[in-house]
Amino acid sequence: MKLIRFGAEGQEKPGVQLTNGQRLDVSGFGEDYTEKFFETNGLERLEEWLKINEDKCPGVAEDIRLGSPICRPSKLVCIGLNYAKHAEEAGMKVPNEPVLFFKSTTAIVGPNDNVIIPKGSEKTDWEVELAVVIGKKASYVSKENALDYVAGYVLHNDVSERAYQIEKEGQWCKGKGCDTFAPLGPFMATKDEIKDPNNLHLWLKLNGEMMQDSSTSDFIFNIQESISYISQFMTLLPGDVISTGTPFGVGLGLTPPLYLKPGDVMELGVEGLGVSKQTAVAYPGE
Amino acid sequence: MKLIRFGAEGQEKPGVQLTNGQRLDVSGFGEDYTEKFFETNGLERLEEWLKINEDKCPGVAEDIRLGSPICRPSKLVCIGLNYAKHAEEAGMKVPNEPVLFFKSTTAIVGPNDNVIIPKGSEKTDWEVELAVVIGKKASYVSKENALDYVAGYVLHNDVSERAYQIEKEGQWCKGKGCDTFAPLGPFMATKDEIKDPNNLHLWLKLNGEMMQDSSTSDFIFNIQESISYISQFMTLLPGDVISTGTPFGVGLGLTPPLYLKPGDVMELGVEGLGVSKQTAVAYPGE
Repeated sequence: MKLIRFGAEGQEKPGVQLTNGQRLDVSGFGEDYTEKFFETNGLERLEEWLKINEDKCPGVAEDIRLGSPICRPSKLVCIGLNYAKHAEEAGMKVPNEPVLFFKSTTAIVGPNDNVIIPKGSEKTDWEVELAVVIGKKASYVSKENALDYVAGYVLHNDVSERAYQIEKEGQWCKGKGCDTFAPLGPFMATKDEIKDPNNLHLWLKLNGEMMQDSSTSDFIFNIQESISYISQFMTLLPGDVISTGTPFGVGLGLTPPLYLKPGDVMELGVEGLGVSKQTAVAYPGE
Repeated sequence: MKLIRFGAEGQEKPGVQLTNGQRLDVSGFGEDYTEKFFETNGLERLEEWLKINEDKCPGVAEDIRLGSPICRPSKLVCIGLNYAKHAEEAGMKVPNEPVLFFKSTTAIVGPNDNVIIPKGSEKTDWEVELAVVIGKKASYVSKENALDYVAGYVLHNDVSERAYQIEKEGQWCKGKGCDTFAPLGPFMATKDEIKDPNNLHLWLKLNGEMMQDSSTSDFIFNIQESISYISQFMTLLPGDVISTGTPFGVGLGLTPPLYLKPGDVMELGVEGLGVSKQTAVAYPGE
Protein backbone atom coordinates (compact mmCIF):
# COMPACT_ATOMS: atom_id res chain seq x y z
CA MET A 1 0.00 0.00 0.00
CA LYS A 2 1.16 3.53 -0.75
CA LEU A 3 0.06 6.32 1.59
CA ILE A 4 -0.19 9.87 0.31
CA ARG A 5 -1.44 13.14 1.76
CA PHE A 6 -2.76 15.84 -0.51
CA GLY A 7 -4.16 19.36 -0.46
CA ALA A 8 -3.02 22.78 0.72
CA GLU A 9 -0.16 23.02 3.24
CA GLY A 10 -1.41 22.36 6.74
CA GLN A 11 -4.76 21.11 5.46
CA GLU A 12 -3.67 17.85 3.88
CA LYS A 13 -6.08 14.94 3.62
CA PRO A 14 -5.07 11.29 3.66
CA GLY A 15 -5.09 9.24 0.49
CA VAL A 16 -3.65 6.14 -1.11
CA GLN A 17 -1.97 5.58 -4.44
CA LEU A 18 -3.04 2.41 -6.18
CA THR A 19 -0.78 0.06 -8.11
CA ASN A 20 -2.00 1.60 -11.37
CA GLY A 21 -0.92 5.06 -10.15
CA GLN A 22 -4.45 6.27 -9.47
CA ARG A 23 -4.83 8.32 -6.29
CA LEU A 24 -7.79 7.98 -3.95
CA ASP A 25 -9.07 10.26 -1.20
CA VAL A 26 -9.52 8.13 1.94
CA SER A 27 -10.78 10.92 4.20
CA GLY A 28 -13.81 8.69 4.69
CA PHE A 29 -11.66 6.38 6.80
CA GLY A 30 -11.67 9.19 9.33
CA GLU A 31 -8.00 9.23 10.34
CA ASP A 32 -4.88 11.04 9.26
CA TYR A 33 -1.48 9.31 9.24
CA THR A 34 -0.46 10.24 12.77
CA GLU A 35 1.38 8.56 15.61
CA LYS A 36 -1.97 7.23 16.78
CA PHE A 37 -2.79 5.79 13.34
CA PHE A 38 0.42 3.76 13.24
CA GLU A 39 0.17 2.85 16.93
CA THR A 40 -3.29 1.36 16.54
CA ASN A 41 -2.63 -0.88 13.51
CA GLY A 42 -3.89 1.82 11.20
CA LEU A 43 -2.24 0.25 8.18
CA GLU A 44 -4.09 -3.04 8.61
CA ARG A 45 -7.34 -1.32 9.46
CA LEU A 46 -7.07 0.97 6.42
CA GLU A 47 -6.37 -2.00 4.16
CA GLU A 48 -9.47 -3.79 5.45
CA TRP A 49 -11.55 -0.63 5.09
CA LEU A 50 -10.36 -0.18 1.51
CA LYS A 51 -11.51 -3.67 0.53
CA ILE A 52 -15.06 -2.54 1.24
CA ASN A 53 -14.89 1.16 0.45
CA GLU A 54 -12.38 1.60 -2.36
CA ASP A 55 -15.08 2.04 -5.00
CA LYS A 56 -16.69 4.87 -3.06
CA CYS A 57 -13.45 6.85 -2.55
CA PRO A 58 -13.21 10.01 -4.64
CA GLY A 59 -10.20 10.30 -6.95
CA VAL A 60 -7.46 12.88 -6.38
CA ALA A 61 -6.73 15.06 -9.39
CA GLU A 62 -3.25 14.82 -10.91
CA ASP A 63 -2.49 18.49 -10.33
CA ILE A 64 -3.33 18.59 -6.62
CA ARG A 65 -0.40 19.33 -4.33
CA LEU A 66 1.06 16.41 -2.39
CA GLY A 67 2.10 16.97 1.21
CA SER A 68 4.34 14.83 3.34
CA PRO A 69 2.77 11.35 3.22
CA ILE A 70 2.72 11.18 7.02
CA CYS A 71 1.79 13.75 9.65
CA ARG A 72 4.48 15.59 11.57
CA PRO A 73 6.36 12.93 13.54
CA SER A 74 7.74 13.36 17.04
CA LYS A 75 11.25 13.01 15.60
CA LEU A 76 13.16 13.08 12.35
CA VAL A 77 16.40 11.30 13.27
CA CYS A 78 19.18 11.11 10.71
CA ILE A 79 22.26 8.97 10.27
CA GLY A 80 25.27 11.01 9.18
CA LEU A 81 28.11 9.80 6.97
CA ASN A 82 26.52 6.41 6.31
CA TYR A 83 28.19 5.90 2.92
CA ALA A 84 31.99 5.70 2.91
CA LYS A 85 32.52 7.72 -0.27
CA HIS A 86 30.27 10.51 1.03
CA ALA A 87 32.21 10.72 4.30
CA GLU A 88 35.33 11.13 2.18
CA GLU A 89 33.88 13.91 -0.01
CA ALA A 90 32.68 15.72 3.13
CA GLY A 91 36.23 15.61 4.46
CA MET A 92 35.17 13.50 7.44
CA LYS A 93 36.30 10.10 8.60
CA VAL A 94 34.21 6.96 8.21
CA PRO A 95 32.48 6.54 11.58
CA ASN A 96 32.91 3.47 13.77
CA GLU A 97 29.32 3.68 14.95
CA PRO A 98 26.40 5.63 13.48
CA VAL A 99 26.54 9.41 13.73
CA LEU A 100 23.09 10.67 14.76
CA PHE A 101 21.50 14.07 14.44
CA PHE A 102 18.00 15.52 14.43
CA LYS A 103 16.32 17.57 11.75
CA SER A 104 13.69 19.96 13.06
CA THR A 105 10.28 18.54 12.13
CA THR A 106 9.22 22.04 11.06
CA ALA A 107 11.48 21.45 8.04
CA ILE A 108 9.10 18.84 6.61
CA VAL A 109 7.30 19.74 3.38
CA GLY A 110 5.69 17.97 0.47
CA PRO A 111 7.72 16.14 -2.18
CA ASN A 112 7.35 18.80 -4.86
CA ASP A 113 7.27 21.95 -2.74
CA ASN A 114 9.85 24.65 -3.24
CA VAL A 115 13.02 24.52 -1.17
CA ILE A 116 13.63 27.97 0.31
CA ILE A 117 17.27 29.05 0.41
CA PRO A 118 17.56 30.66 3.88
CA LYS A 119 18.21 34.40 4.24
CA GLY A 120 21.77 35.15 3.25
CA SER A 121 22.61 31.47 2.70
CA GLU A 122 25.26 30.65 0.12
CA LYS A 123 25.78 26.94 0.80
CA THR A 124 22.45 25.13 0.51
CA ASP A 125 23.05 21.57 -0.67
CA TRP A 126 21.09 18.43 -1.62
CA GLU A 127 21.12 14.89 -0.17
CA VAL A 128 18.92 12.10 -1.54
CA GLU A 129 18.11 9.60 1.21
CA LEU A 130 16.04 6.54 1.98
CA ALA A 131 13.94 7.21 5.07
CA VAL A 132 12.23 4.68 7.29
CA VAL A 133 8.88 5.23 9.03
CA ILE A 134 8.56 3.52 12.40
CA GLY A 135 5.43 1.45 12.97
CA LYS A 136 5.56 0.76 16.68
CA LYS A 137 7.30 1.98 19.82
CA ALA A 138 10.95 0.91 19.68
CA SER A 139 13.32 0.91 22.64
CA TYR A 140 16.43 -1.30 22.94
CA VAL A 141 15.49 -3.23 19.84
CA SER A 142 17.87 -5.91 18.53
CA LYS A 143 19.17 -5.92 14.97
CA GLU A 144 17.41 -9.22 14.43
CA ASN A 145 14.00 -7.79 15.30
CA ALA A 146 14.50 -4.28 13.95
CA LEU A 147 12.43 -4.66 10.78
CA ASP A 148 9.40 -5.64 12.90
CA TYR A 149 9.31 -1.99 13.96
CA VAL A 150 9.13 -0.59 10.43
CA ALA A 151 5.85 0.65 8.95
CA GLY A 152 7.31 1.63 5.61
CA TYR A 153 9.75 3.67 3.56
CA VAL A 154 9.76 7.12 2.04
CA LEU A 155 11.98 9.26 -0.19
CA HIS A 156 13.67 12.19 1.58
CA ASN A 157 15.83 15.09 0.42
CA ASP A 158 17.95 15.95 3.47
CA VAL A 159 18.58 19.54 2.36
CA SER A 160 21.55 20.98 4.26
CA GLU A 161 23.13 24.42 4.65
CA ARG A 162 26.84 23.63 4.87
CA ALA A 163 28.00 26.91 6.41
CA TYR A 164 25.36 26.60 9.12
CA GLN A 165 26.13 22.91 9.60
CA ILE A 166 29.90 22.96 9.66
CA GLU A 167 31.27 26.49 10.00
CA LYS A 168 29.16 27.61 12.97
CA GLU A 169 29.80 26.60 16.57
CA GLY A 170 29.26 22.86 17.25
CA GLN A 171 26.41 20.52 16.29
CA TRP A 172 24.89 20.09 12.86
CA CYS A 173 21.27 20.92 13.65
CA LYS A 174 21.63 24.57 12.56
CA GLY A 175 22.20 23.54 8.97
CA LYS A 176 19.64 20.75 8.80
CA GLY A 177 16.36 22.09 10.13
CA CYS A 178 15.59 25.24 8.14
CA ASP A 179 12.03 25.47 6.86
CA THR A 180 11.43 23.34 3.70
CA PHE A 181 14.70 21.40 4.26
CA ALA A 182 12.93 18.01 4.49
CA PRO A 183 10.79 17.23 1.44
CA LEU A 184 9.21 13.81 2.11
CA GLY A 185 7.39 11.66 -0.41
CA PRO A 186 5.66 11.36 -2.91
CA PHE A 187 4.32 8.40 -0.89
CA MET A 188 5.13 6.10 1.99
CA ALA A 189 5.35 2.53 0.71
CA THR A 190 4.43 -0.05 3.29
CA LYS A 191 7.16 -2.50 4.24
CA ASP A 192 5.77 -5.37 2.14
CA GLU A 193 6.38 -3.34 -1.04
CA ILE A 194 10.14 -3.12 -0.54
CA LYS A 195 11.85 -6.48 -0.83
CA ASP A 196 15.27 -5.42 0.47
CA PRO A 197 15.69 -1.87 1.78
CA ASN A 198 19.44 -2.44 1.93
CA ASN A 199 19.66 -2.83 -1.82
CA LEU A 200 17.83 0.04 -3.48
CA HIS A 201 19.02 2.32 -6.25
CA LEU A 202 18.90 6.01 -5.30
CA TRP A 203 19.79 9.06 -7.33
CA LEU A 204 19.49 12.83 -7.58
CA LYS A 205 19.67 15.10 -10.61
CA LEU A 206 20.39 18.81 -10.47
CA ASN A 207 18.94 20.68 -13.46
CA GLY A 208 18.78 17.38 -15.34
CA GLU A 209 22.35 16.34 -14.60
CA MET A 210 22.97 13.21 -12.51
CA MET A 211 24.78 14.21 -9.30
CA GLN A 212 24.12 11.23 -7.00
CA ASP A 213 23.71 7.72 -8.38
CA SER A 214 24.23 4.96 -5.88
CA SER A 215 22.67 2.11 -3.95
CA THR A 216 21.71 1.57 -0.34
CA SER A 217 23.82 -1.60 -0.61
CA ASP A 218 26.72 0.80 0.05
CA PHE A 219 25.41 1.63 3.55
CA ILE A 220 28.02 1.48 6.28
CA PHE A 221 25.24 0.68 8.78
CA ASN A 222 22.21 -1.01 7.29
CA ILE A 223 18.58 -0.36 8.22
CA GLN A 224 18.48 -3.02 10.92
CA GLU A 225 21.70 -1.82 12.53
CA SER A 226 20.56 1.81 12.38
CA ILE A 227 17.17 1.22 14.01
CA SER A 228 18.69 -0.96 16.70
CA TYR A 229 21.43 1.57 17.39
CA ILE A 230 19.13 4.60 17.66
CA SER A 231 16.75 2.71 19.93
CA GLN A 232 19.56 2.35 22.50
CA PHE A 233 19.55 6.12 22.99
CA MET A 234 15.91 7.11 22.69
CA THR A 235 12.48 5.58 22.25
CA LEU A 236 11.24 5.74 18.68
CA LEU A 237 7.51 6.37 18.42
CA PRO A 238 5.07 5.16 15.75
CA GLY A 239 5.31 7.56 12.82
CA ASP A 240 8.86 8.67 13.67
CA VAL A 241 11.16 8.99 10.67
CA ILE A 242 14.75 7.81 10.38
CA SER A 243 16.71 9.08 7.42
CA THR A 244 19.57 6.79 6.58
CA GLY A 245 22.23 9.05 5.12
CA THR A 246 23.21 10.18 1.66
CA PRO A 247 25.64 8.72 -0.86
CA PHE A 248 28.49 10.43 -2.72
CA GLY A 249 27.70 13.36 -4.99
CA VAL A 250 26.58 16.34 -2.90
CA GLY A 251 27.54 19.91 -3.78
CA LEU A 252 29.98 20.17 -0.89
CA GLY A 253 32.11 17.40 -2.40
CA LEU A 254 32.61 18.98 -5.81
CA THR A 255 35.72 20.96 -6.81
CA PRO A 256 34.86 23.77 -6.52
CA PRO A 257 31.79 23.13 -4.35
CA LEU A 258 28.44 23.81 -6.01
CA TYR A 259 25.44 25.07 -4.07
CA LEU A 260 21.81 25.76 -4.89
CA LYS A 261 20.76 29.05 -6.42
CA PRO A 262 17.20 30.23 -7.05
CA GLY A 263 15.68 28.40 -10.00
CA ASP A 264 17.75 25.25 -9.63
CA VAL A 265 15.70 22.07 -9.91
CA MET A 266 16.40 18.91 -7.90
CA GLU A 267 14.84 15.67 -9.06
CA LEU A 268 15.43 12.59 -6.95
CA GLY A 269 14.29 9.06 -6.43
CA VAL A 270 14.70 5.84 -4.54
CA GLU A 271 13.80 2.56 -6.27
CA GLY A 272 10.21 1.67 -5.38
CA LEU A 273 9.55 4.98 -3.64
CA GLY A 274 8.82 7.26 -6.57
CA VAL A 275 10.33 10.55 -7.60
CA SER A 276 10.18 14.03 -6.09
CA LYS A 277 11.12 17.36 -7.61
CA GLN A 278 11.89 20.61 -5.84
CA THR A 279 12.80 24.03 -7.15
CA ALA A 280 15.14 26.15 -5.06
CA VAL A 281 13.79 29.65 -4.44
CA ALA A 282 15.16 32.72 -2.69
CA TYR A 283 13.83 33.65 0.74
CA PRO A 284 10.96 36.09 0.12
CA GLY A 285 12.38 39.59 -0.22
CA GLU A 286 15.95 38.40 -0.77
CA MET B 1 -0.75 32.31 35.89
CA LYS B 2 0.86 28.93 36.54
CA LEU B 3 -0.04 26.02 34.26
CA ILE B 4 0.22 22.47 35.53
CA ARG B 5 -0.72 19.09 34.15
CA PHE B 6 -1.55 16.24 36.50
CA GLY B 7 -2.51 12.58 36.52
CA ALA B 8 -1.06 9.33 35.25
CA GLU B 9 1.62 9.41 32.56
CA GLY B 10 0.08 9.90 29.14
CA GLN B 11 -3.30 10.75 30.66
CA GLU B 12 -2.50 14.13 32.18
CA LYS B 13 -5.23 16.73 32.60
CA PRO B 14 -4.67 20.48 32.52
CA GLY B 15 -4.72 22.51 35.69
CA VAL B 16 -3.55 25.75 37.21
CA GLN B 17 -1.73 26.52 40.41
CA LEU B 18 -3.06 29.56 42.25
CA THR B 19 -0.98 32.17 44.03
CA ASN B 20 -1.79 30.49 47.35
CA GLY B 21 -0.38 27.19 46.05
CA GLN B 22 -3.77 25.55 45.59
CA ARG B 23 -4.12 23.48 42.43
CA LEU B 24 -7.25 23.44 40.30
CA ASP B 25 -8.41 21.03 37.63
CA VAL B 26 -9.34 23.08 34.55
CA SER B 27 -10.40 20.16 32.35
CA GLY B 28 -13.69 22.01 32.08
CA PHE B 29 -11.98 24.55 29.85
CA GLY B 30 -11.83 21.75 27.31
CA GLU B 31 -8.27 22.15 26.06
CA ASP B 32 -4.89 20.73 26.92
CA TYR B 33 -1.72 22.87 26.71
CA THR B 34 -0.83 22.03 23.13
CA GLU B 35 0.61 23.92 20.18
CA LYS B 36 -2.95 24.85 19.23
CA PHE B 37 -3.71 26.18 22.74
CA PHE B 38 -0.77 28.59 22.62
CA GLU B 39 -1.36 29.45 18.97
CA THR B 40 -4.94 30.50 19.58
CA ASN B 41 -4.35 32.79 22.56
CA GLY B 42 -5.14 29.99 24.96
CA LEU B 43 -3.48 31.76 27.87
CA GLU B 44 -5.74 34.79 27.56
CA ARG B 45 -8.80 32.68 26.94
CA LEU B 46 -8.06 30.47 29.94
CA GLU B 47 -7.58 33.51 32.15
CA GLU B 48 -10.95 34.91 31.08
CA TRP B 49 -12.61 31.52 31.57
CA LEU B 50 -11.13 31.22 35.06
CA LYS B 51 -12.63 34.56 36.12
CA ILE B 52 -16.05 33.02 35.65
CA ASN B 53 -15.39 29.36 36.42
CA GLU B 54 -12.66 29.24 39.06
CA ASP B 55 -15.10 28.49 41.86
CA LYS B 56 -16.47 25.48 40.01
CA CYS B 57 -13.08 23.90 39.29
CA PRO B 58 -12.31 20.79 41.35
CA GLY B 59 -9.15 20.87 43.45
CA VAL B 60 -6.17 18.65 42.70
CA ALA B 61 -4.97 16.57 45.64
CA GLU B 62 -1.44 17.24 46.91
CA ASP B 63 -0.30 13.69 46.25
CA ILE B 64 -1.38 13.46 42.63
CA ARG B 65 1.47 13.08 40.14
CA LEU B 66 2.42 16.13 38.12
CA GLY B 67 3.27 15.70 34.46
CA SER B 68 5.10 18.09 32.20
CA PRO B 69 3.13 21.36 32.44
CA ILE B 70 2.82 21.51 28.65
CA CYS B 71 2.02 18.83 26.07
CA ARG B 72 4.77 17.31 23.98
CA PRO B 73 6.21 20.17 21.91
CA SER B 74 7.39 19.90 18.31
CA LYS B 75 10.91 20.69 19.52
CA LEU B 76 13.03 20.86 22.65
CA VAL B 77 15.97 23.01 21.54
CA CYS B 78 18.86 23.54 23.90
CA ILE B 79 21.69 26.03 24.14
CA GLY B 80 24.99 24.37 25.00
CA LEU B 81 27.79 25.90 27.04
CA ASN B 82 25.86 29.09 27.82
CA TYR B 83 27.69 29.80 31.10
CA ALA B 84 31.43 30.46 30.85
CA LYS B 85 32.40 28.54 33.97
CA HIS B 86 30.42 25.49 32.82
CA ALA B 87 32.15 25.50 29.41
CA GLU B 88 35.43 25.47 31.32
CA GLU B 89 34.47 22.55 33.59
CA ALA B 90 33.29 20.60 30.53
CA GLY B 91 36.71 21.13 28.96
CA MET B 92 35.20 23.09 26.06
CA LYS B 93 35.84 26.61 24.85
CA VAL B 94 33.42 29.46 25.41
CA PRO B 95 31.42 29.66 22.17
CA ASN B 96 31.34 32.76 19.97
CA GLU B 97 27.74 32.11 19.04
CA PRO B 98 25.17 29.83 20.68
CA VAL B 99 25.75 26.09 20.40
CA LEU B 100 22.42 24.43 19.60
CA PHE B 101 21.26 20.86 20.01
CA PHE B 102 17.99 19.00 20.25
CA LYS B 103 16.74 16.78 23.02
CA SER B 104 14.34 14.09 21.88
CA THR B 105 10.84 15.09 23.03
CA THR B 106 10.29 11.49 24.15
CA ALA B 107 12.66 12.37 27.01
CA ILE B 108 10.08 14.68 28.61
CA VAL B 109 8.61 13.56 31.94
CA GLY B 110 7.00 15.16 34.97
CA PRO B 111 8.97 17.22 37.50
CA ASN B 112 9.10 14.53 40.18
CA ASP B 113 9.25 11.39 38.04
CA ASN B 114 12.17 9.01 38.35
CA VAL B 115 15.16 9.51 36.08
CA ILE B 116 16.08 6.17 34.54
CA ILE B 117 19.80 5.54 34.19
CA PRO B 118 20.07 3.95 30.72
CA LYS B 119 21.12 0.33 30.30
CA GLY B 120 24.81 0.02 31.03
CA SER B 121 25.24 3.76 31.56
CA GLU B 122 27.94 4.92 33.96
CA LYS B 123 27.96 8.65 33.27
CA THR B 124 24.47 10.05 33.80
CA ASP B 125 24.70 13.66 34.95
CA TRP B 126 22.44 16.55 36.03
CA GLU B 127 21.96 20.06 34.61
CA VAL B 128 19.53 22.56 36.13
CA GLU B 129 18.25 24.93 33.45
CA LEU B 130 15.79 27.72 32.83
CA ALA B 131 13.58 26.80 29.88
CA VAL B 132 11.42 29.10 27.78
CA VAL B 133 8.07 28.14 26.27
CA ILE B 134 7.33 29.79 22.92
CA GLY B 135 3.94 31.48 22.57
CA LYS B 136 3.73 32.16 18.87
CA LYS B 137 5.41 31.14 15.62
CA ALA B 138 8.90 32.64 15.53
CA SER B 139 11.06 32.92 12.42
CA TYR B 140 13.85 35.48 11.92
CA VAL B 141 12.88 37.31 15.08
CA SER B 142 15.00 40.26 16.24
CA LYS B 143 16.52 40.42 19.73
CA GLU B 144 14.41 43.50 20.39
CA ASN B 145 11.16 41.65 19.72
CA ALA B 146 12.17 38.24 21.03
CA LEU B 147 10.29 38.39 24.34
CA ASP B 148 7.03 38.99 22.42
CA TYR B 149 7.30 35.34 21.35
CA VAL B 150 7.53 33.96 24.88
CA ALA B 151 4.52 32.33 26.58
CA GLY B 152 6.31 31.55 29.80
CA TYR B 153 9.10 29.83 31.67
CA VAL B 154 9.63 26.40 33.17
CA LEU B 155 12.23 24.55 35.23
CA HIS B 156 14.16 21.84 33.36
CA ASN B 157 16.71 19.23 34.36
CA ASP B 158 18.71 18.60 31.17
CA VAL B 159 19.84 15.13 32.22
CA SER B 160 22.82 14.04 30.13
CA GLU B 161 24.77 10.83 29.63
CA ARG B 162 28.34 12.05 29.16
CA ALA B 163 29.78 8.92 27.53
CA TYR B 164 26.94 8.91 25.00
CA GLN B 165 27.23 12.66 24.49
CA ILE B 166 30.97 13.07 24.19
CA GLU B 167 32.72 9.73 23.75
CA LYS B 168 30.58 8.33 20.92
CA GLU B 169 30.86 9.42 17.29
CA GLY B 170 29.83 13.06 16.68
CA GLN B 171 26.80 15.07 17.83
CA TRP B 172 25.46 15.31 21.34
CA CYS B 173 21.91 14.03 20.78
CA LYS B 174 22.79 10.46 21.83
CA GLY B 175 23.45 11.59 25.38
CA LYS B 176 20.59 14.03 25.73
CA GLY B 177 17.42 12.31 24.61
CA CYS B 178 17.18 9.09 26.63
CA ASP B 179 13.75 8.43 28.15
CA THR B 180 13.12 10.50 31.33
CA PHE B 181 16.08 12.81 30.59
CA ALA B 182 13.92 15.96 30.49
CA PRO B 183 11.91 16.50 33.67
CA LEU B 184 9.88 19.69 33.11
CA GLY B 185 7.98 21.62 35.76
CA PRO B 186 6.40 21.70 38.36
CA PHE B 187 4.57 24.48 36.45
CA MET B 188 4.92 26.86 33.52
CA ALA B 189 4.80 30.43 34.81
CA THR B 190 3.41 32.87 32.31
CA LYS B 191 5.77 35.62 31.19
CA ASP B 192 4.18 38.31 33.39
CA GLU B 193 5.23 36.39 36.52
CA ILE B 194 8.96 36.60 35.78
CA LYS B 195 10.26 40.17 35.96
CA ASP B 196 13.68 39.50 34.44
CA PRO B 197 14.45 36.02 33.09
CA ASN B 198 18.07 37.05 32.68
CA ASN B 199 18.51 37.48 36.42
CA LEU B 200 17.15 34.41 38.20
CA HIS B 201 18.78 32.30 40.86
CA LEU B 202 19.03 28.61 39.90
CA TRP B 203 20.43 25.70 41.85
CA LEU B 204 20.59 21.92 42.08
CA LYS B 205 21.25 19.70 45.09
CA LEU B 206 22.39 16.09 44.89
CA ASN B 207 21.38 14.08 47.95
CA GLY B 208 20.95 17.34 49.84
CA GLU B 209 24.31 18.81 48.88
CA MET B 210 24.40 21.97 46.77
CA MET B 211 26.09 21.20 43.45
CA GLN B 212 24.94 24.05 41.21
CA ASP B 213 24.19 27.50 42.64
CA SER B 214 24.24 30.29 40.14
CA SER B 215 22.22 32.94 38.32
CA THR B 216 20.95 33.35 34.79
CA SER B 217 22.68 36.74 34.93
CA ASP B 218 25.79 34.71 34.07
CA PHE B 219 24.36 33.73 30.66
CA ILE B 220 26.75 34.19 27.77
CA PHE B 221 23.74 34.62 25.47
CA ASN B 222 20.63 35.94 27.16
CA ILE B 223 17.07 34.85 26.47
CA GLN B 224 16.46 37.47 23.79
CA GLU B 225 19.69 36.67 21.96
CA SER B 226 19.01 32.93 22.18
CA ILE B 227 15.47 33.10 20.77
CA SER B 228 16.53 35.44 18.00
CA TYR B 229 19.51 33.26 17.12
CA ILE B 230 17.58 29.97 16.99
CA SER B 231 14.85 31.56 14.89
CA GLN B 232 17.42 32.25 12.15
CA PHE B 233 17.83 28.49 11.65
CA MET B 234 14.36 27.08 12.18
CA THR B 235 10.80 28.19 12.83
CA LEU B 236 9.83 27.90 16.48
CA LEU B 237 6.23 26.81 16.98
CA PRO B 238 3.85 27.73 19.80
CA GLY B 239 4.56 25.41 22.70
CA ASP B 240 8.16 24.71 21.63
CA VAL B 241 10.66 24.68 24.47
CA ILE B 242 14.11 26.29 24.53
CA SER B 243 16.39 25.27 27.35
CA THR B 244 19.02 27.89 28.00
CA GLY B 245 22.02 25.97 29.29
CA THR B 246 23.36 24.97 32.67
CA PRO B 247 25.76 26.71 35.03
CA PHE B 248 28.91 25.37 36.68
CA GLY B 249 28.62 22.38 38.98
CA VAL B 250 27.74 19.28 36.96
CA GLY B 251 29.18 15.85 37.76
CA LEU B 252 31.41 15.87 34.69
CA GLY B 253 33.29 18.88 36.07
CA LEU B 254 34.21 17.38 39.44
CA THR B 255 37.59 15.80 40.22
CA PRO B 256 37.07 12.91 39.99
CA PRO B 257 33.80 13.15 38.01
CA LEU B 258 30.68 12.09 39.89
CA TYR B 259 27.74 10.47 38.17
CA LEU B 260 24.26 9.36 39.19
CA LYS B 261 23.71 5.96 40.77
CA PRO B 262 20.38 4.35 41.65
CA GLY B 263 18.85 6.02 44.69
CA ASP B 264 20.50 9.40 44.20
CA VAL B 265 18.09 12.30 44.61
CA MET B 266 18.28 15.51 42.61
CA GLU B 267 16.42 18.54 43.85
CA LEU B 268 16.50 21.67 41.73
CA GLY B 269 14.91 25.04 41.31
CA VAL B 270 14.81 28.28 39.42
CA GLU B 271 13.65 31.43 41.20
CA GLY B 272 9.92 31.89 40.57
CA LEU B 273 9.55 28.51 38.88
CA GLY B 274 9.29 26.18 41.83
CA VAL B 275 11.25 23.10 42.73
CA SER B 276 11.40 19.62 41.22
CA LYS B 277 12.84 16.44 42.66
CA GLN B 278 13.88 13.28 40.83
CA THR B 279 15.27 10.01 42.07
CA ALA B 280 17.72 8.18 39.81
CA VAL B 281 16.76 4.54 39.26
CA ALA B 282 18.36 1.66 37.41
CA TYR B 283 16.93 0.55 34.07
CA PRO B 284 14.42 -2.22 34.87
CA GLY B 285 16.28 -5.51 35.11
CA GLU B 286 19.71 -3.89 35.43
